[in-house]
Amino acid sequence: MNKPMNIDQLEVGYDIPAAIGMDESEIQTPCLILDLDALERNIKKMGDYAKAHGMRHRVHGKMHKSVDVAKLQEKLGGAVGVCCQKVSEAEVFARGGIKDILVSNQVRDPAKIDRLARLPQLGARTIVCVDDIENISDLSEAAQRHGTDLEVFVEIDCGAGRCGVTTTEDVVAIAKAAEAAPNLKFSGIQAYQGAMQHLDTYEARKEKLEAAIAMVEDAYDGLKNAGIDCELVSGGGTGSYYFEANSGVYNELQCGSYAFMDADYGRILDKDGNRIDQGEWENALFILTSVMSHAKADKAICDAGLKAQSVDSGLPFIFGRDDVEYLKCSDEHGVIGDPNGALKVNDRLRLVPGHCDPTCNVHDWYVGVRNGKVEALWPVSARGKAY
Amino acid sequence: MNKPMNIDQLEVGYDIPAAIGMDESEIQTPCLILDLDALERNIKKMGDYAKAHGMRHRVHGKMHKSVDVAKLQEKLGGAVGVCCQKVSEAEVFARGGIKDILVSNQVRDPAKIDRLARLPQLGARTIVCVDDIENISDLSEAAQRHGTDLEVFVEIDCGAGRCGVTTTEDVVAIAKAAEAAPNLKFSGIQAYQGAMQHLDTYEARKEKLEAAIAMVEDAYDGLKNAGIDCELVSGGGTGSYYFEANSGVYNELQCGSYAFMDADYGRILDKDGNRIDQGEWENALFILTSVMSHAKADKAICDAGLKAQSVDSGLPFIFGRDDVEYLKCSDEHGVIGDPNGALKVNDRLRLVPGHCDPTCNVHDWYVGVRNGKVEALWPVSARGKAY
Repeated sequence: MNKPMNIDQLEVGYDIPAAIGMDESEIQTPCLILDLDALERNIKKMGDYAKAHGMRHRVHGKMHKSVDVAKLQEKLGGAVGVCCQKVSEAEVFARGGIKDILVSNQVRDPAKIDRLARLPQLGARTIVCVDDIENISDLSEAAQRHGTDLEVFVEIDCGAGRCGVTTTEDVVAIAKAAEAAPNLKFSGIQAYQGAMQHLDTYEARKEKLEAAIAMVEDAYDGLKNAGIDCELVSGGGTGSYYFEANSGVYNELQCGSYAFMDADYGRILDKDGNRIDQGEWENALFILTSVMSHAKADKAICDAGLKAQSVDSGLPFIFGRDDVEYLKCSDEHGVIGDPNGALKVNDRLRLVPGHCDPTCNVHDWYVGVRNGKVEALWPVSARGKAY
Repeated sequence: MNKPMNIDQLEVGYDIPAAIGMDESEIQTPCLILDLDALERNIKKMGDYAKAHGMRHRVHGKMHKSVDVAKLQEKLGGAVGVCCQKVSEAEVFARGGIKDILVSNQVRDPAKIDRLARLPQLGARTIVCVDDIENISDLSEAAQRHGTDLEVFVEIDCGAGRCGVTTTEDVVAIAKAAEAAPNLKFSGIQAYQGAMQHLDTYEARKEKLEAAIAMVEDAYDGLKNAGIDCELVSGGGTGSYYFEANSGVYNELQCGSYAFMDADYGRILDKDGNRIDQGEWENALFILTSVMSHAKADKAICDAGLKAQSVDSGLPFIFGRDDVEYLKCSDEHGVIGDPNGALKVNDRLRLVPGHCDPTCNVHDWYVGVRNGKVEALWPVSARGKAY
């Protein structure tokens, strides 16, 4: 419910997977753990990169759904605020004290538009994406009703193949309509190329991004020619941020997965052909799991299955072990190939999930660990906030 | 937190997706809805079947994770109690008033064993599966420590390929050890053939189940020859229950998905070659979703993606529509092929999820609807209870 709570009143194993100060070996599995050292290094590194390139970094809060992680990204990585995908997520971040929030998605349902228009009352600069000129009057009316100001990014579909307009003409028309509408302001362009983030090679990703940048440049020039100021050009993910940062037209990044990493991102290759989880970023997020049956000699069964992760982008891998392999996943079980009988019941393993975003969304807590001890317990504050 | 709450204090769209009495058109999407008429018919039908065949029905609570649904299954379907897969789920059901609970899984972690042994204090008959004789002393010690009685099912791996022993010798040895251990009682056999439930044809499923039944009969006879009473033989799912019910050796069913149905179960065929969602069972569970962008003429983008469902068993299908198709899923979006431009922004669709169990686990609420109105709001009481 994201209501204030007293962690001391929660019962380990029922409400929470761990208590602060506990040994890592006592954490109740399966649960998400964060290697705090690795997380902090990732956050600082991206923050330093953005700063060195004169880019704002609006971190993607939809990945972790955590007010605590967002605040760490502000503190250690100089993040300017968050983007997220749902009004209900934005509400969590605004209530949690984040002051600059982009809903990087369309909001069309009247009840959701009404809620969006109330967000500035919580002290948050509130921006929303638009890809249909008919949306403008609804947003404006809601903002007028609540006496607030909403800002609009026009979303360009630069390759994701989902939402977004595809012509500069449409960008300019929507921007003009936003500028003309009471309590609305046109503030920039949303241009996130989602489909290319997971292409293996640097060159393949570069080719797609160059096409995206060309679309964005055309739209930017079109706005300029129409006399419309475009304050922000926002986009970029963990597989592309260096292209946007060096484009000369983007001025805001939206990276998310770099902070935690996952198996699917980890296997893409950097400019030199190295996996990005072998130097560029560190695995900071793990599903901690325990072996709970070893009735067959060559198979260990662990307690993390489909309800502890999403396998949409493939199975997890077992961190730091090449003698055992996560082979199969059912609702509450993982089947681990253990050809040498290396594992025994109650042994613990760290799984790197296939896809961090939907995996975080099935858990209630992040257990932050450092030097084998539980140092932090952070709620997945916007878990399940899908509306 | 599963603490008592006052539904009247919750805000629609922030805490809950709907309010009782609301029109279906006002429900905040994406969310789970239950067609209460279909749900009640499914529950009654399976209850009548079990009764007619002299079978106990211990409904699988791991599917819905809902105390309210379990109680409806007791009331309308004569269910004797629940099974579930985790101690934390069992705690939710016991606190919710379910009086006969099987943890149909191994419990090996000392902290979890301790919690399991406290469950009878909540008034619940508590049974747990064992596949390793070394587990017996830990269970017995915990039960003695808390002054409670635990019951043991020996799990046979009759084809699922996960946990479970594979010889009658092991079944008898563990049963004897349980009988000899203070505060433990051997109560039966767990023999659920999970791997065959989703085989398409009736004949393919029958062949697998006959092999399972032969293993169970051998174990049952072995126990009898050793002078050990086997009160319960438990197993059976939505794709197999008629085989167990007519086996002469099983006396308890464990069906779960029949109540809600999903796309993956729906496509298996009954004895006459018909899909089981076309007569045997009705789709009662849906993800209600809204169109939130239609910037491309032939594609509608809906608001239910990977965080509103699990796609481990395939994509959802759109209920009652053959003119549009759910083609692709990303974190917060579904891409719907709409070749005739039949959909417009804010149109609503009912998706039948690929796999009900892990889909229910990402939602906080079931919205029960009847005749276009919201009639019930049930928490997914054990959502996220993975420990």
